[in-house]
Amino acid sequence: MSGTEKEFVKEVTSRSVDFSQWYLDIVLKTGMMDYAPIRGCMAIRPYGYAIWENIQGLLDKRIKDTGHQNAYFPLFIPESLLNKEAEHVEGFAPEGAWVTQGGDEKLAERLIVRPTSEAIICYMYGRWIQSWRDLPVLINQWCNVVRWEKSTRPFLRTSEFLWQEGHTVHRTEEEAEEEALKMLGVYKEFVENEMAIPVLWGQKTESEKFAGALRTFTIETLMPDGKALQSGTSHNLGQHFAQVFDIQFLDTDDTMKYPWQTSWGVSTRLIGALIMAHGDDNGLRLPPRIAPTQLVVVPILSKKAREQVLQKAEELSAGLKEEFRVELDARDEYSPGWKFNEWEMKGVPLRLEIGPRDLENGGVTAVRRDTGAKEFIPEGRLSTRVGELLQEIQVELFRQAESYKEENTRRVSTLEEFKNIMEQKRLLILAPWCGGSSCEDRIKEETRATIRCIPFKEEIDEKGSCVCCGREEGRVVYFAQAY
Amino acid sequence: MSGTEKEFVKEVTSRSVDFSQWYLDIVLKTGMMDYAPIRGCMAIRPYGYAIWENIQGLLDKRIKDTGHQNAYFPLFIPESLLNKEAEHVEGFAPEGAWVTQGGDEKLAERLIVRPTSEAIICYMYGRWIQSWRDLPVLINQWCNVVRWEKSTRPFLRTSEFLWQEGHTVHRTEEEAEEEALKMLGVYKEFVENEMAIPVLWGQKTESEKFAGALRTFTIETLMPDGKALQSGTSHNLGQHFAQVFDIQFLDTDDTMKYPWQTSWGVSTRLIGALIMAHGDDNGLRLPPRIAPTQLVVVPILSKKAREQVLQKAEELSAGLKEEFRVELDARDEYSPGWKFNEWEMKGVPLRLEIGPRDLENGGVTAVRRDTGAKEFIPEGRLSTRVGELLQEIQVELFRQAESYKEENTRRVSTLEEFKNIMEQKRLLILAPWCGGSSCEDRIKEETRATIRCIPFKEEIDEKGSCVCCGREEGRVVYFAQAY
Repeated sequence: MSGTEKEFVKEVTSRSVDFSQWYLDIVLKTGMMDYAPIRGCMAIRPYGYAIWENIQGLLDKRIKDTGHQNAYFPLFIPESLLNKEAEHVEGFAPEGAWVTQGGDEKLAERLIVRPTSEAIICYMYGRWIQSWRDLPVLINQWCNVVRWEKSTRPFLRTSEFLWQEGHTVHRTEEEAEEEALKMLGVYKEFVENEMAIPVLWGQKTESEKFAGALRTFTIETLMPDGKALQSGTSHNLGQHFAQVFDIQFLDTDDTMKYPWQTSWGVSTRLIGALIMAHGDDNGLRLPPRIAPTQLVVVPILSKKAREQVLQKAEELSAGLKEEFRVELDARDEYSPGWKFNEWEMKGVPLRLEIGPRDLENGGVTAVRRDTGAKEFIPEGRLSTRVGELLQEIQVELFRQAESYKEENTRRVSTLEEFKNIMEQKRLLILAPWCGGSSCEDRIKEETRATIRCIPFKEEIDEKGSCVCCGREEGRVVYFAQAY
Repeated sequence: MSGTEKEFVKEVTSRSVDFSQWYLDIVLKTGMMDYAPIRGCMAIRPYGYAIWENIQGLLDKRIKDTGHQNAYFPLFIPESLLNKEAEHVEGFAPEGAWVTQGGDEKLAERLIVRPTSEAIICYMYGRWIQSWRDLPVLINQWCNVVRWEKSTRPFLRTSEFLWQEGHTVHRTEEEAEEEALKMLGVYKEFVENEMAIPVLWGQKTESEKFAGALRTFTIETLMPDGKALQSGTSHNLGQHFAQVFDIQFLDTDDTMKYPWQTSWGVSTRLIGALIMAHGDDNGLRLPPRIAPTQLVVVPILSKKAREQVLQKAEELSAGLKEEFRVELDARDEYSPGWKFNEWEMKGVPLRLEIGPRDLENGGVTAVRRDTGAKEFIPEGRLSTRVGELLQEIQVELFRQAESYKEENTRRVSTLEEFKNIMEQKRLLILAPWCGGSSCEDRIKEETRATIRCIPFKEEIDEKGSCVCCGREEGRVVYFAQAY
């Protein structure tokens, strides 16, 4: 390694020294984002945005395959509409960005830049829904939202972020509940299979549910610093919004009824999960299914065989491009070592090196980003073997994250033990909870951990004495410190 | 036709009676949009948004194929950044939506909701560009923008709209000019080939150019009311923005230089163009390449052969779905006639009817939306013939629009003639203009027509005495009343 090459990596703080600084180093160094001159806002640069486009593409397909259509609702919500649902306004008004001036005119009514779109969408739904024939309404929107946050971190919490928000309307409670759970399942499957991150899932407690919802369901991912990241939520909104926005439909029995609604969303926060779940001290490690570049071809250009090597690299890249997302790095101004570091930093799953010796041997040297393992692949097997390796890398990244999660989950039965763990090393805790909010609050106060979710009974159906009060019998739930 | 069926169509104003009302009827009736309770804002409903998604998909591919990457920049621009370029702020500040409050805090500096993103993007580019190695920068973003408009019409002019805006940075003026023209060419090719609308193109005059640009190029489409619609623009920004935002790069000759920039965009306004260019009194007529549904299969369900007809309709639809965007309309609660009207209203290019007689004859009856022509297609030829018909419809819609344009273009040499035409019937005018802004203003005053573009010399390179002053020799340019 030359001096410059070392420098490239040296500029990144080690994960073990300062995880938080490592994260900030990575997002800048990889060109995923940059800070913008507006508080808490960022510019998502092409490399970060390409990841978002892949997330969008893969998730949008699932959203459509489950019968939803996309639409677009206004950015601005009049204050009076936001005010209709009491819990909702309490939750979102304090972090609103407010438009008070339009052109030269001071507005008669303030407009909030949407922090979420229930209020404006319910207003429109009230115009569109008349009878049972109009149901279900299954609509999703991809857009930007704004929450004026006090403390922000790139991708994880920004004043403006990108997301999708599904908003559905149903005849019955059962249908709405089924929809809310179905979309949570879509999120879990997507995050695990495409992003290679294992997910915990379940229901939020009353204190952690969405402002205005009847029930909130969540997927949570455990990050390498032992904190949980809420990565997607799905809400059964009940009839709250229908009542205040007067959405009514004539049912088959000829009576007017309030329908049941859901909403569900994931955001650019998922990019933060991706970075943290898989990254190492050399940079990102992207799962092949989500990586903007799945493999990079680096020709090793000695003077002797320069032309032949370059030509072969171009030929192989062109062939691989038919099946994979390929980058050929034939830049002259950088050494192979510098390039290796740069592509490792960017987390490209597979690197193919082609030098004079590879040329002689009739193949390429493949290096995996996840394990560093090298292997020679004869040209005739190249496309097959690359496909296999990408699949193996996808599986291996999930396996590593899964075993991290298992090794960092503890079952505890006393608050003492709970506190000790949180003081020494943050972990994911499974412990019984009586269901009372005073115990929930006290645990939070003493451990800074919150209930991430009450697991579904099909997964964990255990009971025990409440870890806090000890008096009441309680369900075993997930606790962790949270982002 | 039953009473209800007639009603369905009757609710739409005839184009010849009131074109403007026809347009408003169509956008509501087809479920493309609805008015939102915020001045000048609309909700784009699934059918309208599906058209936008097709526009996005087809155009995004072209943007990427020409070497650009997508990114995302903040929604908010601090007033001080907007103020840096004098013409730019003058053009956009008066129609700004201003955020003055964030959470509980009155902001020290107002933020404008982006009306266009030059200011914030140039700020970021100033951080990213250091040397010639960083050039060209070829970035595009898909996003929402807001211009607080006094008078609005769905899709054509709304306070909030969706668009893409490309922002590129180059070493030299030649490169920037080439880029601006290349992207204009991409727009023209896209609008003509995918949307089947013929385009005029050329350069804007000084008075019509983009606020802050050196030169603006435009594509314009002639609508059936004789007005021109500016449908996409591409700007050579010169070095204006680089200078005020201090974007400098170290060139290969080791001196610091200001780079040259371009920006270019098309918006949801294109949906308005699509509606107007092809629609008729029965509704939309969508070009197959952009239509959310390319063909609808309507089973004619008599009591006798009900099951067999339905089964065949399902079987054929499933087969066609592998190649085309297909809707099977097997709803029981509507008559075939009602369905025909509804799908005609929605502009679906091709309808396939399957009744007991078609079943006996071993095929389906196809009805074209553009011409109303019917033909019987034997099952064995179905997929081939559907492909041919869709292609023919695409070509025919373009041909009709093209011949409308030719029939409604006049060459005039006197202002008298010009005024007469505009008083009787609006047309697209080709007339010589001396290049003076006083003539440009006077023509506008007397005819309400503006110079839509100065055509490229390769297309029209004619001269003559100025249609206004008569004194000076001038280039022949396009005039029309504009949206």
